[in-house]
Amino acid sequence: MATIRDVAKAAGVSVATVSRVINKNEYVNKETEQKVIVAMQELHYEPSSLARGLAGKKMNTIALMIPDISNPFFPGLARGVEDVAQQYDFNVFLCNSDDLAYKEKSYLEILRKKSIDGLIIISNNVNEEELEPLRMANIPVVLLDRPFNEQNYSVVRSNNRNGAIMAVEHLLAIGCKKIAHIAGPEKFVTARERRLGYEGIVSQYSWYTPSLIEHANFDIEGGKQAVTKLVANNTDIDGIFAGNDLMALGALKQLIKLGKNVPDDIALCGFDGISLTELTQPEITTIQQPIYEMGAAAALTLIKKLKGEITETKIQELDVKLIIRGSTEKGKKLPLAT
Amino acid sequence: MATIRDVAKAAGVSVATVSRVINKNEYVNKETEQKVIVAMQELHYEPSSLARGLAGKKMNTIALMIPDISNPFFPGLARGVEDVAQQYDFNVFLCNSDDLAYKEKSYLEILRKKSIDGLIIISNNVNEEELEPLRMANIPVVLLDRPFNEQNYSVVRSNNRNGAIMAVEHLLAIGCKKIAHIAGPEKFVTARERRLGYEGIVSQYSWYTPSLIEHANFDIEGGKQAVTKLVANNTDIDGIFAGNDLMALGALKQLIKLGKNVPDDIALCGFDGISLTELTQPEITTIQQPIYEMGAAAALTLIKKLKGEITETKIQELDVKLIIRGSTEKGKKLPLAT
Repeated sequence: MATIRDVAKAAGVSVATVSRVINKNEYVNKETEQKVIVAMQELHYEPSSLARGLAGKKMNTIALMIPDISNPFFPGLARGVEDVAQQYDFNVFLCNSDDLAYKEKSYLEILRKKSIDGLIIISNNVNEEELEPLRMANIPVVLLDRPFNEQNYSVVRSNNRNGAIMAVEHLLAIGCKKIAHIAGPEKFVTARERRLGYEGIVSQYSWYTPSLIEHANFDIEGGKQAVTKLVANNTDIDGIFAGNDLMALGALKQLIKLGKNVPDDIALCGFDGISLTELTQPEITTIQQPIYEMGAAAALTLIKKLKGEITETKIQELDVKLIIRGSTEKGKKLPLAT
Repeated sequence: MATIRDVAKAAGVSVATVSRVINKNEYVNKETEQKVIVAMQELHYEPSSLARGLAGKKMNTIALMIPDISNPFFPGLARGVEDVAQQYDFNVFLCNSDDLAYKEKSYLEILRKKSIDGLIIISNNVNEEELEPLRMANIPVVLLDRPFNEQNYSVVRSNNRNGAIMAVEHLLAIGCKKIAHIAGPEKFVTARERRLGYEGIVSQYSWYTPSLIEHANFDIEGGKQAVTKLVANNTDIDGIFAGNDLMALGALKQLIKLGKNVPDDIALCGFDGISLTELTQPEITTIQQPIYEMGAAAALTLIKKLKGEITETKIQELDVKLIIRGSTEKGKKLPLAT
């Protein structure tokens, strides 16, 4: 069955624009509207009944628990969850846990009491015991992005270690001789996997020392602080692999402030593929996770469980992709060799 | 009573850091932790019982309905709502409506059926009739940011028209001779108020023509598209007031792509005060709304209504502030006149 995402892709517009056409909202120009309508016809796309009114519909609701609403990666996952949920007439409640265990526990309790239909959870803190009351209440749970080590739950994640390897190999390929890593907090499995990917490559080189890893929070401020320390401790680094894109944004800002040219003095690669990495000068090379697809896959898995279409648990590990941009295009302004 | 925000301010750290100290999470260095503890003692701050465990607590839940989770302005409002809610032992469900009327209606119905305690809503579509079922169910509602014209609800908003006037007067003061406006969709009262503020000033000038206003969506892509049209239609514009910061980010990106120097060819001012405006080169001048405080005020009003401490409706209009940055600092690199 075609999804709203397929229509958007076929018409070369955003999902929001397709939504606007379906709902006859403002500010879709005629030409775009026509493209969307043609794409809907070609793909035999039927907007869900929810999209066209609520008459007689059962109100289903799933929850998505995210650790940090201010990191665009998580709203990106939510976008995928929400579009699939809409397709199947589900509402989505977002629960922003701030990665705090007590907030997560509180949400789990309230979701159970409010008889939510299902839950997609992104968490480092929650374990099987804490999810047991939901299992008892017959509320299915899918683990997204940061699964705990557990066989009884379906998991959707991306290949974090592979992505880190791609980042470091790219920095080596463009000629970097000493590559540092801004690592996220060790309690996050995603941060650990990316750090391990980095170490797996660089530990083979004589220039490697553990002081090339700087831990920080997965945010802009974390990236800034880590760069300050890295540059002070390692005067000769010429490449940085940041553990996520927010860190990379902070790192770029701080490198410019320190008078470094990016990429010629220090090349920079992030991780996630959030669109903010395209707004900076230079734009930031990154390892793109299939963010929307991860959210969509988690929602589809949950809804199929709810409908009884699948009963087994499964792990879906999605591939990541290197997106090369200005922050690693060393010497791009030099004339081509003739 | 001191709030977690007061503690953060006194300690010179973020609210998240104070949360980490309270909850003994990782990655707070000793020095920072000490600062936070001292600030908590000086302010006689008591973390809410929720912050220290859930034993015996009633589970209260409010909902916050936002139109666009991908615009950091709304997560910023959510931050203020959530911190106050936590202080009073309330959970917050976020409902991302994508500004679609049918999603909002669906959420209103589900929130009523799930017996949510109260609702803060940011919407252009919802009217008094649609909120009537919540009123009948004794679920109080506070309107945030984009109120409809209604006396029966408490409202928290900022002074949008004044902010627009400040933006245009600033652009005039730095010597702009022809100022364009990228306006948000007319259906948003915030967009209309900002456009009216702009027109109120510029309509006095002989250079003003209506082609200096370009409407677009309140997002990065909208800013890019509008700039392309404005520059094509008005070759001599030297200042742009963008209706929100996402548009300003897109506008800056596009201006650079078109080979324009910002601010020397075209100066640029946004509206909202989201932190992304500090990440670009140049950083973007903006009209800063008190985003966190707006969210906090809405939550406090709702919770006081729930506790029966206030019964009347009131309108809280918060002031905005001009934040001058590189995108309007024309000729900054020139030597000072002697």
